[in-house]
Amino acid sequence: MITGVLEAAVYAEDLEAARGFYTGMLDLPEIAAVEGRHVFFRCGESVLLVFRAAASRQPPGPDALPVPPHGAEGAGHVCLRVAKEHLDPLATRLESAGVAIESDFRWPHGPRSIYVRDPAGNSVEFAAGELWGLDG
Amino acid sequence: MITGVLEAAVYAEDLEAARGFYTGMLDLPEIAAVEGRHVFFRCGESVLLVFRAAASRQPPGPDALPVPPHGAEGAGHVCLRVAKEHLDPLATRLESAGVAIESDFRWPHGPRSIYVRDPAGNSVEFAAGELWGLDG
Repeated sequence: MITGVLEAAVYAEDLEAARGFYTGMLDLPEIAAVEGRHVFFRCGESVLLVFRAAASRQPPGPDALPVPPHGAEGAGHVCLRVAKEHLDPLATRLESAGVAIESDFRWPHGPRSIYVRDPAGNSVEFAAGELWGLDG
Repeated sequence: MITGVLEAAVYAEDLEAARGFYTGMLDLPEIAAVEGRHVFFRCGESVLLVFRAAASRQPPGPDALPVPPHGAEGAGHVCLRVAKEHLDPLATRLESAGVAIESDFRWPHGPRSIYVRDPAGNSVEFAAGELWGLDG
């Protein structure tokens, strides 16, 4: 019944810095935003949500859609899917942009993962589907 | 270069309760686990990671793979993709299993979202790709 992750969420106090990273550096198109609350990015077949927890934790008002509150503190994690032949060019781009690569290694079964931090300190991994036995 | 979200992460203190929810109730196959640290579930073309933040926040040891630490406190959010014709059967299943539906509504442009809480209090949404203009 469940066919994938449609949305993954991380939290950031500074949404402008999140824009600079996810759109400015990673080229993910911004598809929605509410000033001071969230900014959402298209991420291929999924959507990456970046929320200011202080705002997303507020319950919806009486005239708003009943979107349940949530919000976390501390470094979250997301892994973005990149075809394996694009991992080298991505690493080059990250380094050129001055983004520190925190880790870059191969798992025992072969697939490679590259890890950086987004401006809020979330752990952002890049890996191909083969990490989990998936194509592409 | 980025084609999707390969992994989304939420945090839970009680990994057994997470298993009961994500595998026992939602039928997501468990694909990896480290006792007391994490349990991972296949979620169609993606993977849902559930970590105990107290463990995933520990830096890797000198002989371990250099997996960067992360870990958040508070309710996170993930949206799992369900074809729109499966949302009614899913709601029935959730109700039969005694899972409270926190919210079930249509967005102004039509697509439906159903929200529940996982045992750790994370906000879990179910929606079809059409929510974001995607097929399926």
